[in-house]
Order: sequence, then structure tokens, then C-alpha cells
Amino acid sequence: MNQSAIARSWVEHANGHSDFPLQNLPLGIFSRGSDERRCGVAIGDAILDLDAVLAAGLFDGQARNAVQATRGGALNAYFALGREARVALRERLLELLGADSPHQAALKPALYPAAECQLHLPARIGDYTDFYVGIEHAKNVGKLFRPDNPLLPNYKYVPIGYHGRASTIRPSGTDVRRPNGQTLPAGQTEPSFGPCARLDYELELGIWIGQGNAMGDAIPVAQAGEHVAGYCLLNDWSARDIQAWEYQPLGPFLSKSFISTVSPWVVTAEALEPFRCAQPARPEGDPQPLAYLLDPRDQAGGAFDIELEVLLLTERMREQNLPAHRLTLSNTLSMYWTVAQMVAHHSVNGCQLQPGDLFGSGTLSGAKPGQFGSLLEITEGGKVPIELASGEVRRFLEDGDEIILRARCKRDGVASIGFGECRGKILPAH
Amino acid sequence: MNQSAIARSWVEHANGHSDFPLQNLPLGIFSRGSDERRCGVAIGDAILDLDAVLAAGLFDGQARNAVQATRGGALNAYFALGREARVALRERLLELLGADSPHQAALKPALYPAAECQLHLPARIGDYTDFYVGIEHAKNVGKLFRPDNPLLPNYKYVPIGYHGRASTIRPSGTDVRRPNGQTLPAGQTEPSFGPCARLDYELELGIWIGQGNAMGDAIPVAQAGEHVAGYCLLNDWSARDIQAWEYQPLGPFLSKSFISTVSPWVVTAEALEPFRCAQPARPEGDPQPLAYLLDPRDQAGGAFDIELEVLLLTERMREQNLPAHRLTLSNTLSMYWTVAQMVAHHSVNGCQLQPGDLFGSGTLSGAKPGQFGSLLEITEGGKVPIELASGEVRRFLEDGDEIILRARCKRDGVASIGFGECRGKILPAH
Repeated sequence: MNQSAIARSWVEHANGHSDFPLQNLPLGIFSRGSDERRCGVAIGDAILDLDAVLAAGLFDGQARNAVQATRGGALNAYFALGREARVALRERLLELLGADSPHQAALKPALYPAAECQLHLPARIGDYTDFYVGIEHAKNVGKLFRPDNPLLPNYKYVPIGYHGRASTIRPSGTDVRRPNGQTLPAGQTEPSFGPCARLDYELELGIWIGQGNAMGDAIPVAQAGEHVAGYCLLNDWSARDIQAWEYQPLGPFLSKSFISTVSPWVVTAEALEPFRCAQPARPEGDPQPLAYLLDPRDQAGGAFDIELEVLLLTERMREQNLPAHRLTLSNTLSMYWTVAQMVAHHSVNGCQLQPGDLFGSGTLSGAKPGQFGSLLEITEGGKVPIELASGEVRRFLEDGDEIILRARCKRDGVASIGFGECRGKILPAH
Repeated sequence: MNQSAIARSWVEHANGHSDFPLQNLPLGIFSRGSDERRCGVAIGDAILDLDAVLAAGLFDGQARNAVQATRGGALNAYFALGREARVALRERLLELLGADSPHQAALKPALYPAAECQLHLPARIGDYTDFYVGIEHAKNVGKLFRPDNPLLPNYKYVPIGYHGRASTIRPSGTDVRRPNGQTLPAGQTEPSFGPCARLDYELELGIWIGQGNAMGDAIPVAQAGEHVAGYCLLNDWSARDIQAWEYQPLGPFLSKSFISTVSPWVVTAEALEPFRCAQPARPEGDPQPLAYLLDPRDQAGGAFDIELEVLLLTERMREQNLPAHRLTLSNTLSMYWTVAQMVAHHSVNGCQLQPGDLFGSGTLSGAKPGQFGSLLEITEGGKVPIELASGEVRRFLEDGDEIILRARCKRDGVASIGFGECRGKILPAH
């Protein structure tokens, strides 16, 4: 199949290099001016208002049920419906937005320029769990503390994760207030209090949970995919100096809970299907996963080939009209555990997952320079500064710096899709 | 003042040794049969239905506003109103339920035997944070790993806490399914999978958050009390074998998230006022808290003198009609940090707290045998079994065991109040 065989939309912008061609169709929650929040689908540089399309009578059956569940300003009820409803809606949207659609005239009034809309969180987040499945990140960080033995003994058996703070997850574009906190300055034995001096980003894949489980019932790994509603980008902003002082013995807390940022569009499993691939073979000598984490279909096609990118734009770079500096070019293939394994592990003790819960993958770094997903790794804990075209250097983030995460899926003969941006700019501490 | 000067209720049972005399008046969410969930106040062995009292026209002004905010099956909106509304409602309830109330006849139809009612979670829990402020527990657990140096260097500076799982918090009486999980058997280098073999309880004070803060705005320690809606008991059930294998480097996860149990009544700051006391003096050589954690009024009266008790009832003890075995008799005076310090610390980085968030204090052990708040401490990690009157021994909890937490406040000349029970019985693993 060549590019010309790829289905096109009558929304012309979707046929270019947009993150949102006809093959993507991610849902999100948006508003215009002071209008109520409602559900839209991203298509090229526009947003199709599903409420308006519903009112125009262009949905029926399962697709209509799905759209009705998207109402009310959050997608939780829609996430709870599961795969069948999601696929029905996708198929109808492919008809409505495809180049041959007979409904163009009826749909145009429901199509708004994305630039005129405000994007919100797609769901009310019940619980947020941050995993640590990026093995190269775990190695890079482990090396800073244990050069000879970077990975702890449990890493290759346990999809390590911890509970994060749900109340401070915000959509792309929300400013990031530099946190205050306790830190232990080098060489001191007593802590100081003040603004974080080692503010960092973390590049992660976000996973939105769909159908939940009852407390006490584990989700088998073979069924875990049915419990995932979609994917986004996640910046797990981190205050490294606060983290170093607070995190023993119970893990990161205030060093992470000041804000986490997500990209607002929920990219579906169906859109990502062409970019599925086998889980990379475990290196010689690595143990097999325990049985509750092992499913042949998941091993054969449970990983993703998604290119991930992080850009930095400083105040001075904006003033000088310089292009953003690429900090990271990485890939989801660095995940040591699949999303299905994360779901199965999380629920194996009977923990209840609910529609609208969010998982973070953990930082997705590659093994080589240029692929590291945090400044902690890039600058070796602040020792090796980055030089920017503006003449500035960075060890950690400064006030006014903006971090932009992007993701892109590419495969020959298939429409390339993206995730939209996940941005945040640092404001000075209070 | 002697006992006879203590105000009495026309609900006779409230004047005996009830946890719920006229001076307590905790709110909770209850239902009868298949009726809708609604708000009630505990008085003696009865529950007063506030919806019914509202319908009878017996509230006005601030108290009426407060009761209206308790509707809908969760107290979040009521918690958000803050202290003034809570006090107005309390004052009106003191009139209505006091011995001289002219409204007894009107209220009696709204008063149900508590034994006929089902108690639910009092609020939708947004985020749950578990602290670690019980210093004797931290020492006891630390000693198991580091006999010479049980407390980590940050303990006396940082009110240590971590994010817990909100979705599996349940009210007293909910059965506890023994979790499955990965553990590393002694002497092995590869983990096994199966039912937890070291199931434990943790005795904690629970704190319900009232008014929240905007993301980015810290709550000063002097104002922190205004952000607390009330108190409960919390059993932070723990799978010690799962915890030991999983918790490095990011903290406890599946070892805690299978269930946590709370007592269903929200005991207010006003009811606990007579049992406030000065924060116990820090031992010689301990550092002063940093300025953001220090408030003279909090130092002078921010601690609580609440007696805490844990009872064990095994299947065989129930069959033999034996009384429950007391495992723990402890006190909230073992908290190294006050609740105000926990609130101030949690928000100092700008983390947003919301009405209905729940804090756990961490396990509240005393320094001496008989005062330890977990089996991990009592049996020294399973080494020293407990002998029971039934002829059984326990190192950790067995299927069929029931754990009951209780709390009691006592002071001469003041009505003694309690918290009601926080119970849970262990079911076999799936």
C-alpha cells in the first residue's frame, strides 16, 4: 500500500502532516469561550463537536450510545463502556469525516478551529499510578547511586509502580509554579527551605483506564487490553532536590505532587493498532515474567513503536525567535513491561481500577545520549550542562523555560499519527 | 465540674457509656434497607436522619445551609463549607437533642436504631495520603532493618508521607480479601506468586480534609486547622511479604492497595476540643521544626489525647464465645507531628487539597510492649508468636480473623466520647 491508498478526510488539513488525520480520531473535552465543556474529536487543525453532531441526528445505535456517554464534561462514563462502543463510534466517525461523506454540509457548523478552543482534562481522575517501566531510565538513575549495580533485584520481576497525586494533574498549557520545599544542601546535615533548585521534566506515556474491576477481582493479563480506554503524553514534573531529601523510606511525595501535565487528546487502541509490535526480546539471562504477567498475544503484539520527543524553549529563545531545542528523542520500545502487564500487576492483589484512572509509564529514556527522558540523566545530576543556541546553559529548568512533549507514530504505507502537544512553562516560586 | 454537670440528651442511651453522647454528634452517611443514602448524626445507639429533620422544618440559617450541603449521599459539599457552618449545625443539634429539647416528638420519627442501618463511606475520596508520624512505630520498624540507627536522617525534619490508593477505601464491616502477590521467600533469589502469608493491620488516625486550596497556594500551618473537617479511625491493612519485595525504590504499592478500612463517623474538631493538648516536648537534641511547620498555638494545643485500641477475634474465639484479645492500647500522643503540620507540609509545594481527601496518620504505636500498632512490631516480624486464650497462636493474621479498632477520649469532668468501631474480617485469597 502506498500513501495514495490511505483514506482521506474532507477536512483538508487532516490530510497533511497533522497529528490528527482521519486514522487517529482522538476524543477530548473542550470549550469555546464561556460555553459548557463538551466532547470533541480532533481532525486536522479542527475540533468536531460531538454534542452538535448528536443534536443533528447523525449518530444511531451503539455510536449514539457512545456519544451520549461522552456528555457532561468528562469521558468517564464513555470510558466505562469499553471497546465495542468505542469501535462503533470510530467507525461512524470514519464515515462522517471521510472524503466521501455525504454529511459535509451538516457537519461544517459543528467544526471549530482548534486554535479557538480551550482543551480540558478528558476525565475526572480517580487514582493516578506512576510506573517505572522505562528500563533505561531506571538504569541511568540507578547508576547515579549504584554505579556497579544500577537495577534493584526486583526490577525484572515486578512492574514497579507507586501511587501519585490525582488532584494536581492538569492539561497541556497549564503553567507550572516552581515548588517550595525542604532540601538538604550538599555538605550540610540540616535541611533548608526554599524554592526547588533542581526542577526537571519526565517524559512518559499516559494510559487512561476504561472498564474497571470489582475490588478483590484481578484482571488477567490476557484481558487487560479491554480495560484501557486510550493513551496520552504525560510530563511528570520532578523537584530533584526535594525528592532526594524526602523519598526515604516511602517514595516520592511533594517532589512530584505540585503538578503533572497530560496531553488532552485520548488516542485510542484502534488508532495505535498499526504501531503495535512484539515486546522486545528480554536480554540473555533476564528471567521470564511470572505466569500472571505472561500472555502469548501480549508478548507477540503488546508493545508500541511510538517516537517520543521533548523540546525546550527558554525565555531568551522565544525573544530571539530561535527554534526549540530538542532534549530527547526516545521511543516506547524502551518499556520493559507492556501496558497489559501493568494492568494485570496493578489489579493482581484485588486493587480496584476505575474508568478515568490514569497510569504513567515512568520515564521513557533510550540507552544512548540524546535519548534520555529527563535532565537528571542528560546532565548527570547537574554535572554536565547543556549548551543552547541562545548562548544559555541549563543544568535544570529555569523560570520561563517551557517544556514541550510530542509523540509520533510512523510506518510505511500507513497514515502517521501524533498525540498533540503536552506543554508547560515554569513560573517563579511564590 | 463533676459528671452530673455534663449536659444530657433525651435519647437515653446517649447518657451511658456510649461512644456517641450529646457532646460528640459525628456525621455519617447511612441507608436503611434499599432507601437512598443520606446523612445522619450518631446519638447513643441511634441515628438521627438529617434529611427528615430538614423536611420537618427544624433547621434554619447557617445550620439549614449546612444540612442542605450534606445531601446527595456524600459529605464533600458539607466539608467544603468549613468551620462556621459545622459549628452552626452542631449548636442546633445540641438544642434539638439536648434533654430540654421541645422537639422530641417531632424528632422521634427521624431517629432509627443504628443496628438497623447500613453505614457507608462519608465522602467521595479524591486523594488519600498516608503519613508516617507515629515516631515509635517508625523506630520499631526501623530497628528491624537498622538496629543501631532506626530513624532515617529526614524523619525529625519532614512529616514523611506518601500517596495511597483511594479507590479501595471501605467503611467498617467490609470483608478483607487476602491479597495475592509476588514475594521473595527467605533464602531464595527468585520470587514466588501466591496468597500473602504475612497479613497485618495498622492502627491509624484518619483525617478528613475540609476546605481545599488552589493549586500553587500553600496552606500556612496557623490556618491548617480550618482545612480539617473531622477525624476517624483507619486500618491500613498491610501485606508485609509483598511489601518487603516490592517497595524499593518507590515505596509501598500493592502491599497496601487491596483495601483500607475507615470508621464511618466523622468526629469533629469541636467534639475533640476538650481532648486537645500541647504537642509533647521534643526530646533533648531533637531539631526544632522548620519555620513553615511552626505555629505557637499549634505547639500549645495542636496534639490530641485519644486512647486507641486494637482487638483480635478469631474464628475459634467466636465459636467458643471468648472475648476479643486486645493487641494494642496506644494513644495519639505518639504523633511526632500535629495534623496542622501534616496539612501545612502537604500543601507547601502547592499541592491542591480538596474536600473529602483523606489523610492517615501512620501507625500509632507506643514505645512499650502492649502499645504496638501492628503485628510486625508485636511479633518482631513473625519471630515471637502471640498466644491466645483459644489455644491458638498468631504471628500474622489468619483467614477468619477479625480486627477491631476503637478510640476513646477521657478527661475528668467532661463527657467521654468515642469514634465507633473500624472492623474487618479476613477472607481466604481467591
